[in-house]
Amino acid sequence: MASRSIRLAVIPGDGIGPEVVAEGLKVLDAVAQSHDLAIERETYGLGAARWHETGDTLPDSMLEEIRGHDVILLGAVGDPTVPSGVLERGLLLRLRFELDYYVNLRPVKLYPGVTTPLADVRPEDVDMLVVREGTEGPYTGVGGVMRRGTPQEVATQESINTAYGVERVVRYAFARAASRSRKKLTLVHKDNVLTFAGDLYQRTVRAVARDFPEVSVDYLHVDAASMFFVTQPGRFDVVVTDNLFGDILTDLGAAIAGGIGLAASGNVNPTGDAPSMFEPVHGSAPDIAGQGKADPTATILSVAMLLDHLGVPEAARQVESAVAADLAERQGGPARATSQIGDAITKRVAG
Amino acid sequence: MASRSIRLAVIPGDGIGPEVVAEGLKVLDAVAQSHDLAIERETYGLGAARWHETGDTLPDSMLEEIRGHDVILLGAVGDPTVPSGVLERGLLLRLRFELDYYVNLRPVKLYPGVTTPLADVRPEDVDMLVVREGTEGPYTGVGGVMRRGTPQEVATQESINTAYGVERVVRYAFARAASRSRKKLTLVHKDNVLTFAGDLYQRTVRAVARDFPEVSVDYLHVDAASMFFVTQPGRFDVVVTDNLFGDILTDLGAAIAGGIGLAASGNVNPTGDAPSMFEPVHGSAPDIAGQGKADPTATILSVAMLLDHLGVPEAARQVESAVAADLAERQGGPARATSQIGDAITKRVAG
Ligand SMILES: CC(C)[C@H](C(=O)O)[C@@H](O)C(=O)O
Ligand SMILES: CC(C)[C@H](C(=O)O)[C@@H](O)C(=O)O
Repeated sequence: MASRSIRLAVIPGDGIGPEVVAEGLKVLDAVAQSHDLAIERETYGLGAARWHETGDTLPDSMLEEIRGHDVILLGAVGDPTVPSGVLERGLLLRLRFELDYYVNLRPVKLYPGVTTPLADVRPEDVDMLVVREGTEGPYTGVGGVMRRGTPQEVATQESINTAYGVERVVRYAFARAASRSRKKLTLVHKDNVLTFAGDLYQRTVRAVARDFPEVSVDYLHVDAASMFFVTQPGRFDVVVTDNLFGDILTDLGAAIAGGIGLAASGNVNPTGDAPSMFEPVHGSAPDIAGQGKADPTATILSVAMLLDHLGVPEAARQVESAVAADLAERQGGPARATSQIGDAITKRVAG
Repeated sequence: MASRSIRLAVIPGDGIGPEVVAEGLKVLDAVAQSHDLAIERETYGLGAARWHETGDTLPDSMLEEIRGHDVILLGAVGDPTVPSGVLERGLLLRLRFELDYYVNLRPVKLYPGVTTPLADVRPEDVDMLVVREGTEGPYTGVGGVMRRGTPQEVATQESINTAYGVERVVRYAFARAASRSRKKLTLVHKDNVLTFAGDLYQRTVRAVARDFPEVSVDYLHVDAASMFFVTQPGRFDVVVTDNLFGDILTDLGAAIAGGIGLAASGNVNPTGDAPSMFEPVHGSAPDIAGQGKADPTATILSVAMLLDHLGVPEAARQVESAVAADLAERQGGPARATSQIGDAITKRVAG
């Protein structure tokens, strides 16, 4: 059988990015073999080092090259030697905006055997999918500063929300909810304060709901939702929310599901007009970089999401099962190095 | 001894507001006696009922009357029969903006005996003070909508942050941190994305820090802070943050400290140019209104904060001790009605 060829762009990035990406690729290579996938890999040296050398974060020509791939795996972006926001806005958010990742897909799932900080919670209570809007809201970068450094300084940030942008992510979230057993969608916003944007989200959810009569719909203010993530995570199935609320809720979700070391994500462009990008939710963690301490599990689960996106669900399930088996055996065991965890999961995938 | 006279404006508000305020007043009356305070009370019927009757949320003349008091006790605002935002923006936020409550003070404290959803946490691990900015940021209401209801709709919300507004709340937070034993201040923002506002907060904290060399300073992105509230609450002492992040973090804080039924707050104008306003963090909870199910503890603890603000710390400690004693005995006991909890705490205060 002729193998299917996948063009993969790899952006290891900063801090622990390269370490965790190496393990993700190990697992991907192992699973690719048994599914007749030929992975053609191109690595892009973007991040702090490049910025120090050249002053740029993502040259247009490189963006165009990356765009030519089928899919992207990213490690992490951000470094204390670079002013805050330069790499985040210039590289990560630039990719999210230019490649139009309007769905930022973030499962929050507690695997059996994983320790959660919550006292009375079982794995079946924590199994949700957060659909975070990825291309607008408070993340636009619109805003500015006047009279900087004076007592009269004014700094603004603008949240811009469009019917076009909200409708497409809400529709995607409804479709995901319809395909799950509980078929429940919770809109999270703050419509009692952010009345213009909140109203747009509310009206859009009401309108799209007519096309999904099987999905039950709920609404929570973001403050109440944060509380319920901790006190009643079982009330959530699919959550749809704006870019900033989604950022906060998914770190919180990662915390309750056993930590940021396990949280995977996909920046998805469902139109297929650009390659989707998969990345762990965690950051570059410069404090532990280069020490083999980072947990590559979030990246490996992101590889599973990447395989799902490529339409190879059997391969995705194989990776996910290997991770689940590894997680089930971790508790009480000795701490393992990044590469040891990657090797153990690779062995399960291959074996 | 001549008693000190306090002019108190009471705004019971909507839903469970009147029920919990009644208990707060019971306790206040009990403690006032033994501290020679004469409470002159004026009640303002603001909220959903008035809006339905008159169409207004807070007439200018009433605002001026309220302004003439020494202090305000508020229950809760919001009702499902009123469009979302009308009462919140027109009454609660109008008070916060017009009376210039630039400090929204929200202690997050786990009392002994209280059940927390966190597995491995002791009361000494959860003892922080969130200083939330109360008059600007994304709460300004600035923004708008164009082409409403069409596929070309655009809805915006603007976060406006001024050196004037940020400096005063940051300075207040430093002073509070300096007066506590751990002397630690954590700035929470999202300066890698909201670069203009985040940079203003960062520069302001660095500048004010020079006046408080004894205070150690930390910074966390809001997503990471949400995670650490759940995984390492002990790392927080005083937190200073913007209006919206403070809203989210303090509901999360309430959750980890035993629930929204216990979370107190103060809307403080430290200049004394207007009466400060104390209120439970929780909302109007229309689903349980009128059933005697609401926990008045948050309101009673808000009364303690009110007494502290009035400069009667012995009275405040008396209320707080009575609450602590009641909380210590609650566990495993039968559920009590709103008024039973109020009575029990009143009895302890009086006795
Ligand atoms: C690094 C940062 C810009 C990013 C975000 O805020 O989206 C990160 O926190 C995330 O959640 O992927
Ligand atoms: C009711 C609402 C406007 C308010 C807020 O967002 O500030 C509430 O959530 C709070 O925290 O006091």
